[in-house]
Amino acid sequence: MNVQARPADAQTHARPASPADALAAVLREEVAATEAEIARNLASPVGLIPDVAHHLVDAGGKRLRPLLTLASARACGVAGANAVKLAAAVEYIHTATLLHDDVVDGSSLRRGKRAANLIWGDKASVLVGDFLFARAFNLMVQTGSIRVLDILAHASSVIAEGEVLQLAAANSGEVNRDIYMKVVEAKTAALFRAACEAGAITGGGDDEQVAGLARFGRHLGLAFQFVDDALDYGGATDSLGKNVGDDFREGKVTLPVIIALERAQDDEPLFWQRMVARKHREEDLDRGLAILRQRGAIDATLDEAREQVALARAALAPLKDPGIVQLLGELADYVVARVN
Amino acid sequence: MNVQARPADAQTHARPASPADALAAVLREEVAATEAEIARNLASPVGLIPDVAHHLVDAGGKRLRPLLTLASARACGVAGANAVKLAAAVEYIHTATLLHDDVVDGSSLRRGKRAANLIWGDKASVLVGDFLFARAFNLMVQTGSIRVLDILAHASSVIAEGEVLQLAAANSGEVNRDIYMKVVEAKTAALFRAACEAGAITGGGDDEQVAGLARFGRHLGLAFQFVDDALDYGGATDSLGKNVGDDFREGKVTLPVIIALERAQDDEPLFWQRMVARKHREEDLDRGLAILRQRGAIDATLDEAREQVALARAALAPLKDPGIVQLLGELADYVVARVN
Repeated sequence: MNVQARPADAQTHARPASPADALAAVLREEVAATEAEIARNLASPVGLIPDVAHHLVDAGGKRLRPLLTLASARACGVAGANAVKLAAAVEYIHTATLLHDDVVDGSSLRRGKRAANLIWGDKASVLVGDFLFARAFNLMVQTGSIRVLDILAHASSVIAEGEVLQLAAANSGEVNRDIYMKVVEAKTAALFRAACEAGAITGGGDDEQVAGLARFGRHLGLAFQFVDDALDYGGATDSLGKNVGDDFREGKVTLPVIIALERAQDDEPLFWQRMVARKHREEDLDRGLAILRQRGAIDATLDEAREQVALARAALAPLKDPGIVQLLGELADYVVARVN
Repeated sequence: MNVQARPADAQTHARPASPADALAAVLREEVAATEAEIARNLASPVGLIPDVAHHLVDAGGKRLRPLLTLASARACGVAGANAVKLAAAVEYIHTATLLHDDVVDGSSLRRGKRAANLIWGDKASVLVGDFLFARAFNLMVQTGSIRVLDILAHASSVIAEGEVLQLAAANSGEVNRDIYMKVVEAKTAALFRAACEAGAITGGGDDEQVAGLARFGRHLGLAFQFVDDALDYGGATDSLGKNVGDDFREGKVTLPVIIALERAQDDEPLFWQRMVARKHREEDLDRGLAILRQRGAIDATLDEAREQVALARAALAPLKDPGIVQLLGELADYVVARVN
């Protein structure tokens, strides 16, 4: 929804900078209404709540999830007032999980800014996260749709379950593709999926369209996470708001490491186990990056992301609106293309 | 719901030990169904979730809130399957807030057991709390009632807002009755109120009955918190699962201290300010207890609790079922009577 910050851009140029911007331009009014809804529901007489929440919300991020809700609604019919409420709710759920994630991970940067937990403390991050989560449900209730509430409440449980699984795996030092995939399905794909599915229902989609957009969201979420994992080992600090190798430093096992382990030679398994056990030193990051390159792990990660993008594109078949379908397809491509 | 642990008791004696036990005996089947629902929804392939959750849930506590939901439903008609789901949801919301509270407060004891955060760490407590909160919404969605979801989602926002207000007040060192009351209304009364209101709606109550039970829950919650605050300065460690003076040690301003401040003489305001700023030493607790007694602050706190109990009892007027009304009234009395 960056388009908002530079409306001139969106209006003067025929093609905005990215497919996300193009989608946001097509859904200009709904995006503006969603931003207003997001801001309005952060209001509280307890000043610490808007302080903490705005810090994160105003940093922007990609607002990809609410955009998917709006686009899914439009793809099936109309993105009306309820789609806007759901889009805001989805962004709140996402922001709440970021706040709690940063406490759990002890993160120092988020969206290129100091993490909220470092400024206001872990306690504020935990409690404001709870507030955002509760407000998300308030917004969903306002739509009056039990079906949509069911989808988003289920996604919220799945996300929390995935968070706990990740923590338990980190504690036990257990590392394998099965656990990694379960965590990604839960932590990332579930909300992308629910964002699209809820939007499709609210937009009036038939069963096939709703199922198609749910699949689209899931595969897009998986692609998104794989690319994020690859970028952590290769992106530039300022473009991502993250330091290169953060996952390495945190002993976090992501797809590039899973692949490097599957292809490991000599003492490499021991090297990665040391990282997982957080017995590595800062200097080890260079060797980690070298191994990832030697084993082709980053390229292989991006190949897997491309496979997910293809599955996401295929899932759009039941949709009728050619304009939105094209933009959603381009958005899926862009999720991988942003690495270049 | 202690009655479950000793069914022989409930059946052989004409009068069970407390009004809560008596209510649980009248609602025996619904209580058993609620316990089963609570246990069933803690199941997860991620073992850490049932570990942490059962630690707290099995410690029991009073299960007062779910009992209120069931009793409110019965008082208006029938406590059926939906009342059971809501009772379980209410207990989940309560347990989730306890888990997060203990992280925020750095608590060491909860329900007479080591706090979960000390055993599994703050991270697990945050994430399992999130899981329980999400599961609460799953259960509520299963009732299919948007009206009930609205009430409990609203209560959840209010609770979180109260938690943040309490944290902000603790950070700023601001102390007054207004802030204290806002925190208690939000952190305790809101869930008691919602537990009763949601039960009344599900039980088929008319508007007057629903409003009456909502008022009953609110006043009972206020009374309950005032008594808890008094007990913290006078109860026995093993009966409460808390150490005497925990609130003092944590610099937490509760009603006895508010009253002592309102009646303060000489250097007493400074003494309490030192406690709030957590610049007190362990030895200061004795002087704190002495001041509270001298100023009659504990008795005055209990007087205020009794006023709330009277308001709670008066709110039961619209209800027809004399048996449940009598037991709810006795339960309200018992909330204060338990200090003796």
